Amino acid sequence: MSEQIKYLLDEADMPKDWYNLAADLPVPLPAVLHPGTLQPVGPADLAPLFPDSLIMQEVSTERHIEIPDAVRRVFRQWRPAPLYRARRLEEALGTPARIYYKYEGVSPAGSHKPNTAIPQAFYNMEAGIKRLTTETGAGQWGTSLAFAGALFGLEIQVFQVRVSYNQKPYRRAVMETYGASCVASPSSLTESGRAILAKNPDHPGSLGIAISEAVELAVQRDDTKYALGSVLNHVLLHQTIIGLEAMKQLEIAGDDPDVIVGCTGGGSNFAGIAFPFLGQQLRGGRTRRIVAVEPAACPSLTRGKYAYDFGDTAHLTPLTKMHTLGSTFTPPGFHAGGLRYHGMAPMVSHIKELGLIEAVAYHQTQCFEAGVTFARAEGIVPAPEANHAVKGAIEEALRCKREGRSEVILFNLCGHGHFDMAAYTDYFSNRLADLEYDEAELAMALAGLPSVPD
Amino acid sequence: MSEQIKYLLDEADMPKDWYNLAADLPVPLPAVLHPGTLQPVGPADLAPLFPDSLIMQEVSTERHIEIPDAVRRVFRQWRPAPLYRARRLEEALGTPARIYYKYEGVSPAGSHKPNTAIPQAFYNMEAGIKRLTTETGAGQWGTSLAFAGALFGLEIQVFQVRVSYNQKPYRRAVMETYGASCVASPSSLTESGRAILAKNPDHPGSLGIAISEAVELAVQRDDTKYALGSVLNHVLLHQTIIGLEAMKQLEIAGDDPDVIVGCTGGGSNFAGIAFPFLGQQLRGGRTRRIVAVEPAACPSLTRGKYAYDFGDTAHLTPLTKMHTLGSTFTPPGFHAGGLRYHGMAPMVSHIKELGLIEAVAYHQTQCFEAGVTFARAEGIVPAPEANHAVKGAIEEALRCKREGRSEVILFNLCGHGHFDMAAYTDYFSNRLADLEYDEAELAMALAGLPSVPD
Repeated sequence: MSEQIKYLLDEADMPKDWYNLAADLPVPLPAVLHPGTLQPVGPADLAPLFPDSLIMQEVSTERHIEIPDAVRRVFRQWRPAPLYRARRLEEALGTPARIYYKYEGVSPAGSHKPNTAIPQAFYNMEAGIKRLTTETGAGQWGTSLAFAGALFGLEIQVFQVRVSYNQKPYRRAVMETYGASCVASPSSLTESGRAILAKNPDHPGSLGIAISEAVELAVQRDDTKYALGSVLNHVLLHQTIIGLEAMKQLEIAGDDPDVIVGCTGGGSNFAGIAFPFLGQQLRGGRTRRIVAVEPAACPSLTRGKYAYDFGDTAHLTPLTKMHTLGSTFTPPGFHAGGLRYHGMAPMVSHIKELGLIEAVAYHQTQCFEAGVTFARAEGIVPAPEANHAVKGAIEEALRCKREGRSEVILFNLCGHGHFDMAAYTDYFSNRLADLEYDEAELAMALAGLPSVPD
Repeated sequence: MSEQIKYLLDEADMPKDWYNLAADLPVPLPAVLHPGTLQPVGPADLAPLFPDSLIMQEVSTERHIEIPDAVRRVFRQWRPAPLYRARRLEEALGTPARIYYKYEGVSPAGSHKPNTAIPQAFYNMEAGIKRLTTETGAGQWGTSLAFAGALFGLEIQVFQVRVSYNQKPYRRAVMETYGASCVASPSSLTESGRAILAKNPDHPGSLGIAISEAVELAVQRDDTKYALGSVLNHVLLHQTIIGLEAMKQLEIAGDDPDVIVGCTGGGSNFAGIAFPFLGQQLRGGRTRRIVAVEPAACPSLTRGKYAYDFGDTAHLTPLTKMHTLGSTFTPPGFHAGGLRYHGMAPMVSHIKELGLIEAVAYHQTQCFEAGVTFARAEGIVPAPEANHAVKGAIEEALRCKREGRSEVILFNLCGHGHFDMAAYTDYFSNRLADLEYDEAELAMALAGLPSVPD
């Protein structure tokens, strides 16, 4: 049996700054537009939702942004996160490629989400905020914000899409263990929730409705703000600690990645592993292939349109230019709930449009098959979302085998699957189907994109 | 907010030997007796079940037993496991005590069980064995052996108590992800299973029946052996890597424990954290308090009798002298399934009888309350079993607060609760009762202990 190798970093080598890709973009990001005026939004427009420190990060073009000491002290519980050389997986595949993976499942919440939940909670606490509202689908993000709230003494109100709330009681139990309050959305806590319940008391909910409820509650009280777990620039910024650590660890390993792979839903874990490497390239460094892997049932990067669209189905958010399937598009209920989003982070969309990254889509059974191969070789059971990255990396490794090339592949294993084992049960009992989205619905959703003058 | 502190060890400082308490015992362990002859068993009696290397460890009195390189290479994925100074918990409790915990949930299986699953699989592989059988209740042990089997190319057959098999499909899914076969026990795979099913096709199963099935299958084929996850001397030996690492980490922290706390079911995680420190004491070192925490609903150390008894309800195993509630005693169905065993490891029982350790029992709601306090302060959600250790440590910390003493408390956080969140859901919805065992049943079980001449 080959020897798997772990590369740790000393705590002293944990990055002291996040890396901001906006500083190195050859073309700046398209403006964010106000949903009413279609004019670019300014920081003041975002003030009801976010504290100034996060708004400044959202619009910053500074290359390095300091990670507060209080945040680094919390990170030290599980960071620097390990980088592994997947020797046992290489052996199982018979590939000459060298496969590395960064493992973010070591956080107490089990995924990369605390990388941004902790700073978001810290900045809000620092600004005197007492309460945060948020939405969550499967629950990875709600869990992470609940964890962060417990540490910084913030009350956390999570609106969980009702269908997930009922299907995944374990996630809710984790949020409650951390002291957060989690209600099924639509709820009776908000006007928008009550309006929907009045029409349909059994409404299954949607991420769009949950966002509306969280935003409505946040703007009502001065002591309350809103938090988002992906998509926004400052969220992607916070995740760059992943790639910055991996870069140092690969230096210790004496290797340099030819291909970097991450899965994409909103885009934050992908940005986290990829942006620091892409920044090097944009500053004149080596060109590497960067591959975003998305679910075939919700293929925003590979099948979506690059256009201005709303972030939510209720159309309360500003308009951003992004790869989108249309804000009214409802992806089928596949298991990687964290990847079921109609749009893509504007910054990830932008670099895709600039030709700086590739994108590929896989169906879920292929991804679970890859995840099982990985688990038997490496011992870690990946989350359904992470299985997409595993699939992407295995495909690259098999290409290397066919081509006889010993390339270096790096991928981000963004979380473990402990709370998602029902999906594996379905996979083993052949109850896992390759869900297809409705082509007519997609066409309609794309036709309904808001019209924005150039 | 106080700063939690993590103490890591370099891989080079991972222990190279296990520590064998048998070398330092002031009085040797009572003999293990053959169930038929009541005469001491020899190594040959155990040969159908275990490879020679493990039998030699079972009876060894050498102080240090080398950890094979192949085992240490696997351990390097997650070992040395972190030791944390629980500063945030100390602050939450307002205690002058300094609390440290060793965290074993970082293993891919989520608990300390791989510490023995990996070497057991390795020694069997080395002996040419192709298949291992075992029983599991809640599933922590079955999961860990499945993981080990995947790494060493062994087929793993798990007999899971039917009631758990039906209640905990997530654990089974993990075992299957690792490639193990897991069947509900009683099963139709064995004579003993078929005999029970013939009488009652809906029999809920028991750990005793599952052991019978696993043993029956193991002795039938030369290429098959049996593996046990606790109780036996060699299992306790393998777990001492926990305490050996903690000892080095506390040296780095510049502290020395006054009290060591672990939860006890079969006794292996408790032995793991405690034996290396107890060994120091027996060789003339400092005396420390060592506290075993057990469930009040299955209190072998605090309410059991120190007597010869069978390890299984079907009376197939040898007789060992231990604290036992009687092999026919059925503990009520509380959530810490890993602690629901009628007996205690003979070596743990022996040192309790010698007055070298203390024991205390708590009800499950108290333990979950402690676990929630811990999770909100430290971010890690403990397994129901580990909550007993958390409760024990918090009680010691509160005593220190009352007495104004800044003692050093070390406890073993033997696993996370990701697969046990249903128990937390029950706790939060007030569906968790403090189950009491049946006093009459206990009296009957104790009256039925086998009679063994002195």
